[in-house]
Order: sequence, then structure tokens, then C-alpha cells
Amino acid sequence: MRITLLAVGKTDSKELVSLMESLEKRLPAFIRFERKELPDVKNAKNLPEMELKNAEADLILSQLGSGDSLIILDEKGEEFTSVEFSKFLDRQMTHSVKHLVFCIGGAFGFSDKIYHLHPQKVALSKMTFTHQMVRLFFIEQLYRAFSILQGKPYHNE
Amino acid sequence: MRITLLAVGKTDSKELVSLMESLEKRLPAFIRFERKELPDVKNAKNLPEMELKNAEADLILSQLGSGDSLIILDEKGEEFTSVEFSKFLDRQMTHSVKHLVFCIGGAFGFSDKIYHLHPQKVALSKMTFTHQMVRLFFIEQLYRAFSILQGKPYHNE
Repeated sequence: MRITLLAVGKTDSKELVSLMESLEKRLPAFIRFERKELPDVKNAKNLPEMELKNAEADLILSQLGSGDSLIILDEKGEEFTSVEFSKFLDRQMTHSVKHLVFCIGGAFGFSDKIYHLHPQKVALSKMTFTHQMVRLFFIEQLYRAFSILQGKPYHNE
Repeated sequence: MRITLLAVGKTDSKELVSLMESLEKRLPAFIRFERKELPDVKNAKNLPEMELKNAEADLILSQLGSGDSLIILDEKGEEFTSVEFSKFLDRQMTHSVKHLVFCIGGAFGFSDKIYHLHPQKVALSKMTFTHQMVRLFFIEQLYRAFSILQGKPYHNE
């Protein structure tokens, strides 16, 4: 299995990039992982919210190959503890998922189109974090999940 | 009301410090806030987990003034959405809490002593994040909460 984190918009903080990269350097020991940042929609600031979300949805959907499994990261999604999340990932591998794509939306979240086509939602928290910081939280959680699955000393219960 | 974030151990990443500071610069418009990092317990690496947690507990308790209200940040605590968390903070102000202290434990969490004396727990997530990153998540959530209470355009529902 390989995992992609698909995010709308570039990461605008060099600190966040640096923190993500230090985890991403260690992830290949566990899993093939890629962070893919989609370009911002042109003229985004002047678009009505709905139009912006639809344009972002088209961009997201254009990235998916047939057979890819898309999971939306959304605070209204299913919550897991870190151990439960590691088991969730393990189940995906057991079910022969080849490419698991987690997606973080733009500042306004996702359009209904995305929710209808890809109803599976996971929440990192009930709280709303910036769509920029969530990238770091997710990558840390992914690293933690695989360290749990492989019995490495990173996670303390 | 003023709010303190009490954390065990220095923040070891300059990127995290920089991200926290950029939010802390903007917090005084909303609330008097201080991040207070307690020194690491001496010889921590060689102490049994229980002894380390007890030493950290003594350090935490020594920081509290009479009348301070301590809330433990712990993944087993009560969960809020960002809007609910803003209402929680608002209720503290309504109840004339003068000094609200949120506390992040060390790598192994808190000793039972702390839980017995200060049973109020809030969870930023059911997931476990590093006790370093949680500092940033908390400060962002605090900034978000007050921007919600004051009707500022930061949080998108």
C-alpha cells in the first residue's frame, strides 16, 4: 500500500514545511508516502465560497486514479484514538487497498460533490484547525500509527 | 481573566517556537496569555516512569497560586468543537475565574496525584500527539476560540 496526503493550496509556512519534512524523512521505513499540494485555484479570493469549493473539488477529483481510495479529513468524520487509527490503516492493507489518499480541503472545506462521491470521513479532532496545520498533525499521526503497528518505541500509551 | 499554558519541558523545536510566537503576538488583543515551560526534571531519562511523573506533578503543583483553576489537557478528557470550546472559555469568564491554567504533561502524561487534585480534563483530540506539538495546537485553538467570541473573521464554520 502507498499513502498520499492531498492538500489544497501550498503550505505557506516554512516552519510547517520543515516540521513535516523531518517526519517524512523517517516515514519510508514504514510506508511509501507522498504529500501532494495542489495549486491554489486562480482568483480564489474573489470567488464566491461555493464556486471556490467546486473548483477545488474538480482539482481533487482530477488527481485520483481508478481504484484509489479517497478519505476526507474533516472534523465531522469518524474519530479514532492513535491506536485505533493504526488498526484502521492495518485493515486497509489487509483489504488490499493499493493507494490510500487522505485529502485536506481548502479554507472553507469541501463541496457536497466530494462528500457524495467519497463519503468516508476521518476526523483528527472535533476541533477545527487551520487547513495548513492539519497537514503536520496528520503526518505525525501517520508516523505514530505505523510505529505502533511495528512495535517501535515512539508512542506511549 | 488570564490564561496560562503550563508545559513540562522546554519546546525543543525552533519551528514550533516560531509558530507559537506568531500566534502569541496576536493573542493580547483578546486575552492576557502566557506560555510557561517548566524545566525538565533532572536525570529524567534514568528515572522510572512513575517517579518521573511524580516529580513532574510536584513541579506543576508548585506553580499554582490559590484560586488558580487548573485544567489538564489529556486525550481522555472532554471533547469540544472549536465553537463549544469558545463557549467553555466564555463560561469561565462568566464564573469570574481569574486565572485559568491549562497544563500539558510530559512524554508519559500525568501522575494520578494530578488527576485526583485537578479532575477537569479537556481533550484537543482523541488522538495522542507529541507533548511538544500539542502546545502549538492549543495556542491556535485558543486564538480561534477568542476570534469566535469576538466575531472576528478567522474561523469558518
